[in-house]
Amino acid sequence: MREIEFTPERSQYVYTFGGAEPAMRIEPGTAMRLWSEDAFNFALTSVDHLPSQHIDIRYVNPQTGPFYVEGAEPGDTLALHIVDLTPARSFGASSTIPFFGGLTGTDRTALLQDALPEATWIYEVDTARQTVGFQARFGDFEVSLPLEPMLGTVGLAPGASEVRTSLVPERFGGNMDTPEMTIGTTAYLGVNVEGALFSIGDGHYRQGEGEACGTAVEGAMNSVIIVELIKGSAPLWPRLENDDYWMVVGSSRPMEDSWRIAQLEMVTWFTEMFGLHAMDAYQLLTQTSLAPIANAVDANYSVVVKVAKSLMPGGVAYDGIHHELRQAARQLR
Amino acid sequence: MREIEFTPERSQYVYTFGGAEPAMRIEPGTAMRLWSEDAFNFALTSVDHLPSQHIDIRYVNPQTGPFYVEGAEPGDTLALHIVDLTPARSFGASSTIPFFGGLTGTDRTALLQDALPEATWIYEVDTARQTVGFQARFGDFEVSLPLEPMLGTVGLAPGASEVRTSLVPERFGGNMDTPEMTIGTTAYLGVNVEGALFSIGDGHYRQGEGEACGTAVEGAMNSVIIVELIKGSAPLWPRLENDDYWMVVGSSRPMEDSWRIAQLEMVTWFTEMFGLHAMDAYQLLTQTSLAPIANAVDANYSVVVKVAKSLMPGGVAYDGIHHELRQAARQLR
Amino acid sequence: MREIEFTPERSQYVYTFGGAEPAMRIEPGTAMRLWSEDAFNFALTSVDHLPSQHIDIRYVNPQTGPFYVEGAEPGDTLALHIVDLTPARSFGASSTIPFFGGLTGTDRTALLQDALPEATWIYEVDTARQTVGFQARFGDFEVSLPLEPMLGTVGLAPGASEVRTSLVPERFGGNMDTPEMTIGTTAYLGVNVEGALFSIGDGHYRQGEGEACGTAVEGAMNSVIIVELIKGSAPLWPRLENDDYWMVVGSSRPMEDSWRIAQLEMVTWFTEMFGLHAMDAYQLLTQTSLAPIANAVDANYSVVVKVAKSLMPGGVAYDGIHHELRQAARQLR
Amino acid sequence: MREIEFTPERSQYVYTFGGAEPAMRIEPGTAMRLWSEDAFNFALTSVDHLPSQHIDIRYVNPQTGPFYVEGAEPGDTLALHIVDLTPARSFGASSTIPFFGGLTGTDRTALLQDALPEATWIYEVDTARQTVGFQARFGDFEVSLPLEPMLGTVGLAPGASEVRTSLVPERFGGNMDTPEMTIGTTAYLGVNVEGALFSIGDGHYRQGEGEACGTAVEGAMNSVIIVELIKGSAPLWPRLENDDYWMVVGSSRPMEDSWRIAQLEMVTWFTEMFGLHAMDAYQLLTQTSLAPIANAVDANYSVVVKVAKSLMPGGVAYDGIHHELRQAARQLR
Repeated sequence: MREIEFTPERSQYVYTFGGAEPAMRIEPGTAMRLWSEDAFNFALTSVDHLPSQHIDIRYVNPQTGPFYVEGAEPGDTLALHIVDLTPARSFGASSTIPFFGGLTGTDRTALLQDALPEATWIYEVDTARQTVGFQARFGDFEVSLPLEPMLGTVGLAPGASEVRTSLVPERFGGNMDTPEMTIGTTAYLGVNVEGALFSIGDGHYRQGEGEACGTAVEGAMNSVIIVELIKGSAPLWPRLENDDYWMVVGSSRPMEDSWRIAQLEMVTWFTEMFGLHAMDAYQLLTQTSLAPIANAVDANYSVVVKVAKSLMPGGVAYDGIHHELRQAARQLR
Repeated sequence: MREIEFTPERSQYVYTFGGAEPAMRIEPGTAMRLWSEDAFNFALTSVDHLPSQHIDIRYVNPQTGPFYVEGAEPGDTLALHIVDLTPARSFGASSTIPFFGGLTGTDRTALLQDALPEATWIYEVDTARQTVGFQARFGDFEVSLPLEPMLGTVGLAPGASEVRTSLVPERFGGNMDTPEMTIGTTAYLGVNVEGALFSIGDGHYRQGEGEACGTAVEGAMNSVIIVELIKGSAPLWPRLENDDYWMVVGSSRPMEDSWRIAQLEMVTWFTEMFGLHAMDAYQLLTQTSLAPIANAVDANYSVVVKVAKSLMPGGVAYDGIHHELRQAARQLR
Repeated sequence: MREIEFTPERSQYVYTFGGAEPAMRIEPGTAMRLWSEDAFNFALTSVDHLPSQHIDIRYVNPQTGPFYVEGAEPGDTLALHIVDLTPARSFGASSTIPFFGGLTGTDRTALLQDALPEATWIYEVDTARQTVGFQARFGDFEVSLPLEPMLGTVGLAPGASEVRTSLVPERFGGNMDTPEMTIGTTAYLGVNVEGALFSIGDGHYRQGEGEACGTAVEGAMNSVIIVELIKGSAPLWPRLENDDYWMVVGSSRPMEDSWRIAQLEMVTWFTEMFGLHAMDAYQLLTQTSLAPIANAVDANYSVVVKVAKSLMPGGVAYDGIHHELRQAARQLR
Repeated sequence: MREIEFTPERSQYVYTFGGAEPAMRIEPGTAMRLWSEDAFNFALTSVDHLPSQHIDIRYVNPQTGPFYVEGAEPGDTLALHIVDLTPARSFGASSTIPFFGGLTGTDRTALLQDALPEATWIYEVDTARQTVGFQARFGDFEVSLPLEPMLGTVGLAPGASEVRTSLVPERFGGNMDTPEMTIGTTAYLGVNVEGALFSIGDGHYRQGEGEACGTAVEGAMNSVIIVELIKGSAPLWPRLENDDYWMVVGSSRPMEDSWRIAQLEMVTWFTEMFGLHAMDAYQLLTQTSLAPIANAVDANYSVVVKVAKSLMPGGVAYDGIHHELRQAARQLR
């Protein structure tokens, strides 16, 4: 397998999906070793760093990419398989940013109340124990949490000539902030423009579902990703697959619309995989779907609908490409 | 332990939370063996039964209860521990009801489109294999799914002199439709009126998260439940606990408000259990919460926020009553 | 015309729709002169009165009623024509209540931020000039605003054996808080129970659309209302009519659902009045509807959809009963 | 006053806010006579034209512009005063597009139901009577409605390097679809990029509030607009002013967030104009705001909050520029 390694210069960071020249052109079937900066652009390195003083909001969620995939055309499906994710620094950071997050008024849920207190939490990575350490900022509580690295953003250039900030989760993927975007997952994304122009970033050393305060344990990340191209078959919304689950991510507002999107896309997927009538798929999924919230804090809210493969023997998606990618990954990692 | 067995006559079914005379007065510390009718009031027993012709909408989600708990006063906490749930019939039913469900316009999301097709699915219970059987109605697909019994409704009488239909999930519990309301779970509900007046019903032999089409595998249920009373300490919203998780259920509209409710209540719970400042709890929960949707179809949408106890060693809720109830349950079951 | 005058004793105040014994039985065709207490239950009579110290949340929005209308049966339509509204006191009050209102987190939009400052504003009524006077509480700005009295709540007993607090707007009317509920308006409400059991209250000397902070210029009110009964023809949601407009009020969450409800009910009304196909009504209303928000602060959000009669010559609703009531009103007032 | 006339070639139509080269550079203080194509790109000219067969979704809402305003910098305020709007064709068109509109499932409110029937309505313009004619498509009802021309889209290039389709209403204005954007209105928009890069389009010969079915009486338009630049003072969200009202347009989802945005921006504006404390402004606006929905169908829902100047004597916005523009307009028209 072709392997490519890429660490962007700071000047190469990209803050949008779409609108940027490709960092590189790659062939389908390439394994990429990518380094990405953290969502704060390395602005928060101490608990004394307050977001309002250190973060430049124009430069958050820097993306590594975009990468032009040879042969990718609108209507195709880009398959991105996450082989490995490892922290590229010895600590991650999280913070409460004024008027950003799930339990505060925001620029959208626009209220008159004062902002919540700003604060920054630094989580030390313990590589041996594979943990990150929480230390209270308003008391002295401590606890170690398992390192569970994931990518907050995986996205393509949007269609309709749009350019969106890297803070947005949408039909093209983007800032979905789902813990499912982790080692062993294959993401299927519908291609909107020639070359697909995918990028990744916003590494999280750990994140709960919902990403309640708006920022996970944010950290620079080393990612190993295999890129494949499936001609045609573009899903309407991002689909994910790992060894145990089929998943869809819907992103919109209000949150029930995010769920509706994901659930309907899963109905479609089930009609494709199992030859089911849509009403039968709707019924069967009613009894089998899981529905974890991904984020409740971004420009769109993201909801995952997922189904355990163990419940539905015989289902094969995209001709079994996930299985092949897993095999290939074993040789890489 | 005192044990009481109760199977209501049809004339004793109750269709509201609040507004009904108690079926019985019980002492805290009682184990109850309760039978409950299915949500359709046993109206759908064949795939030929269409909801619009067989269901009387005035008589759905019949409750078994309410039960007056001696000594329960407003501000107290009722603890209901689910010892066991077993199907009381050999089949469950599910159906698509016109203008009800998650992927259709409803009386609230009021649209001009025609209703989806009505249909009824009958799921045979295989007791030996502990499965329920799905059979396609618009094709010939079949699959067996694990029996995973749960209660759709567990609720108390509301406050403010309100009486609500048994279709509503709210602060008082009710029709939350979460798969977490299952064997081994203790529910903590804030008491609003003298005697608490709790009831249960809406047994599901199995349900996915979201309850997409609006009805689970609905079936009559035999429930074994231990009732305990905690003086004071009423949570604002329903809290659940099992051996592995602390959980809160928020119910409102839009769905982001359901999540906000549950997440904020969990912040409160964490400040209580761990002496954390609210901002530290908010931060820590950002990295540790799970957030499965319970239902996306009822009068309010319900979202669960849950945290694995394994991540937070040392946490003890309500003086360890869940553990005690688990011990007691072992002797009963 | 029969006339009845009724001023409830404090002990007769009712805080729910449904669940209360009728204050009186009346015949259709009766004119009623009703006195109602203000929404705060007369607890705020000075700018020094803070809501958290003076308001008892169990006793807000006291209703005058309910009145049992002879002959009213489920499926009938109650027509309530507002002949006159006059302030029953020399001042009205408004206040910001902690975690209640449109630009603050609430019990539903549950956030971690501190509450907004509490404050009470007293508006003196100038009967000669027909104004109420605003005086800043955090500065010295003053302005007189036209007196434009309206009723915040006009509601019937709900169906499905429910009892709802008088704070809720719903299908049965209730706390809709629309400035359209004013002198010269006829409200058509679908009857859910024998006798209809309507009540009124929550007089506002003036209110903007949205009722942004959650409380209007609240004041005791003298209302003159003619009660009529239309057999059958119950609208699904409250319809209003004045000399210039047909109107529908939808109440739910999120606010787009309130709008959908009102718009769809207006489509239905147009198919009835003009014999239009629903698609033609949908199209025509797209170009002619007005859509003012009523409240953005209550348990449900209320949206009005209204159409100017001048645009649609020849439209007659309910056999012209509004016109007849206007005639009758002239003799009363 | 400088006057410029511009009618774009078809090849010059722009379908985004941002991302396009300026059609022209203009000085502040210029009056522009602009022609714009209709939202369907002139694809629907007969009732036999079905949207799914005639509309190319990549080419809808064509914009005339963008125009680079000399001296405009981020943080400045662009003032666009609408002097005149006249239909540029003898008919307008409206249609129901599959899965688009307010009373149907959409790509966001994703449902399983079949699409509503497609249909196109053609409205003949009667210049003498100043009306447009509705003719039923599913029956034989006819009615003439007043011509009330307005612009659906008035927008600037977004910030954060974004490019958005011309279907989106946002902080930068865009597809707000409010009937308030009409003759005599001045729009104040915050500049995000050098030159502001404003464009207009989506002329409506008439539209109800909400734009229920998703399309107004769409028609090519001749617009006369005076462009002025105010250094600094950029409002966070679009503000409008006419002789009688101050207005703000908020655009987001769910609709209550659109309202919150608009209401909060109006609070800010009132603190600026009247020196009021935010809490006093909140209170005063509670009793004086109007809150008509603009659109309930676009990528974001738009809500207007407006206040009658007659209620607040002495208020002057932006040093009275609206008054000056009105004076200037009289000489032009």
